[in-house]
Amino acid sequence: MAIIPFSGSPLDRASERRTDASWIAAQRSRTSARIWPLWRLQPFLLGAESHGALSVEPGYLRPATADELAGPGAISIFLGVGEDDAAVFALDLSAAPDPANEGPLAGLGYFRDARTAAQLLPLKDAAILGQAKALIDWHQRHGFCPNCGTRTAFADAGYRRHCGACGADHFPRTDPVVIMLAVHGDACLVGRAHRFPKGMFSALAGYIEPGETIEEAVAREIHEEAGVRVRDVTYFATQPWPFPSSLMIGCFAQAESREISLNDHELAEAFWLEKAKLRALLAGEQVDGLWVPPPIAIAHHLLKRFSEMP
Amino acid sequence: MAIIPFSGSPLDRASERRTDASWIAAQRSRTSARIWPLWRLQPFLLGAESHGALSVEPGYLRPATADELAGPGAISIFLGVGEDDAAVFALDLSAAPDPANEGPLAGLGYFRDARTAAQLLPLKDAAILGQAKALIDWHQRHGFCPNCGTRTAFADAGYRRHCGACGADHFPRTDPVVIMLAVHGDACLVGRAHRFPKGMFSALAGYIEPGETIEEAVAREIHEEAGVRVRDVTYFATQPWPFPSSLMIGCFAQAESREISLNDHELAEAFWLEKAKLRALLAGEQVDGLWVPPPIAIAHHLLKRFSEMP
Repeated sequence: MAIIPFSGSPLDRASERRTDASWIAAQRSRTSARIWPLWRLQPFLLGAESHGALSVEPGYLRPATADELAGPGAISIFLGVGEDDAAVFALDLSAAPDPANEGPLAGLGYFRDARTAAQLLPLKDAAILGQAKALIDWHQRHGFCPNCGTRTAFADAGYRRHCGACGADHFPRTDPVVIMLAVHGDACLVGRAHRFPKGMFSALAGYIEPGETIEEAVAREIHEEAGVRVRDVTYFATQPWPFPSSLMIGCFAQAESREISLNDHELAEAFWLEKAKLRALLAGEQVDGLWVPPPIAIAHHLLKRFSEMP
Repeated sequence: MAIIPFSGSPLDRASERRTDASWIAAQRSRTSARIWPLWRLQPFLLGAESHGALSVEPGYLRPATADELAGPGAISIFLGVGEDDAAVFALDLSAAPDPANEGPLAGLGYFRDARTAAQLLPLKDAAILGQAKALIDWHQRHGFCPNCGTRTAFADAGYRRHCGACGADHFPRTDPVVIMLAVHGDACLVGRAHRFPKGMFSALAGYIEPGETIEEAVAREIHEEAGVRVRDVTYFATQPWPFPSSLMIGCFAQAESREISLNDHELAEAFWLEKAKLRALLAGEQVDGLWVPPPIAIAHHLLKRFSEMP
């Protein structure tokens, strides 16, 4: 199977070292350290997009440049150790007006939205970006203690926030989501959300709730969104999705019938897509004005797997 | 496969009705409504434990009794609709001193810690308890906005909290965890945490982090905790685990060798358990003073499945 974007990171997270502040500081100051700045959740990139995707690469900084740019309070998150033994960090420069326009970064590269960047970067770098983006995003939106309302402090190289008032520790949040294709004979069930333009469709999806399994969430969501009952849920693959921080759990399920009813009106439309049509779409042909989700989405990989089933 | 505790809820969550406050209020006041009080995360139970597990049942209240007990600010969470079309709610009575000792509940039943209660109740009721406990627990520890520190308001029958100051919406948190057995020939890898008494062991486990898949988290955790490299991770089953609110994702993996090294010192001990010994333990025999995890834990079901593999 093809690697699903945002997975396949080459880094060793070395999670047992995160609580060792002096080890982290030593890694951060080694001249071999690679520090990836993000500005308002956009990674810094080098290279020209017009020369093709492969000429774009992460705009890593050395410690001296990173220190020059980082104002007071700019957080630096340890991402892991690379195959070359160099430590990799993410640096949040969001407080600056636009660090690509002046100072040490001017003329070197540019900040690009994370979703586009992930499609331009090599897969290994997109995976590192996903980790960096999800963690910085979490710190930006979790600066206060949900238990008592006090400002919390950055801890463990970015993997904890601590509340000095009530003593609570808070850890990065990852929301599990099921995304699935119900299958009936040689067709699979897809839907068009209200926000999608005509012709665009995807797999059905929804958050897993407290008190349910993956299989129960798959069955509930398909019934809620399309009125279809399913059985025999099987696991396919997962994708970490950093918008803001979901774990997309891809599944297949057997539908009991093809009767559709849009129970909760979450979708504008749901329909059964025949395997032959899907194969033609994946081969780049025009079919009924339909657009297949791009490979950055796990929905693409679910559809591709279904198209290859005998 | 046996049903794993905390899954198999008989309720229809009717999630599309949660935002309809008048529908929720109407269900809550119907005389058929069933309202399950919890006091400091302990469910109210009826029946005598000494008469065997099956004589214990949820201590549901009718709306009039619930209203008499609920002080101002006692939250009532919609859990779903039962097979008999009655709505089921959880009611948090934590503000009261001990509601089983005086008032309308005195002499009727008792509050019991959720973990013990789940082992005494029928599986269907344990699943409802898991949903209730996870949601009440979330509200108790998330009364303030992590984005700006302001007190948030209960919304959507318990499935949202809203911040009037910054406008942020917050949703119940579910933390995905991998729990797995590395397999090598006819043995599987198990560990004893420092807090476990001698002889107690379980499957290895750990939180999935931002930027990794289920398979990557399985490989990372086994390597961090026991120094063993694995490949060919396969999904087994999930369990919603309401302590406080995890999604336990059970997996198997093929180990590349049996060499163990306790890399991160999270475990006191890790060892390879032979299938023959495991079968004897599951049959209730005494082997080397070992204790198998009880059926309330998904680890039990992983071990049982491994013991049944040819």
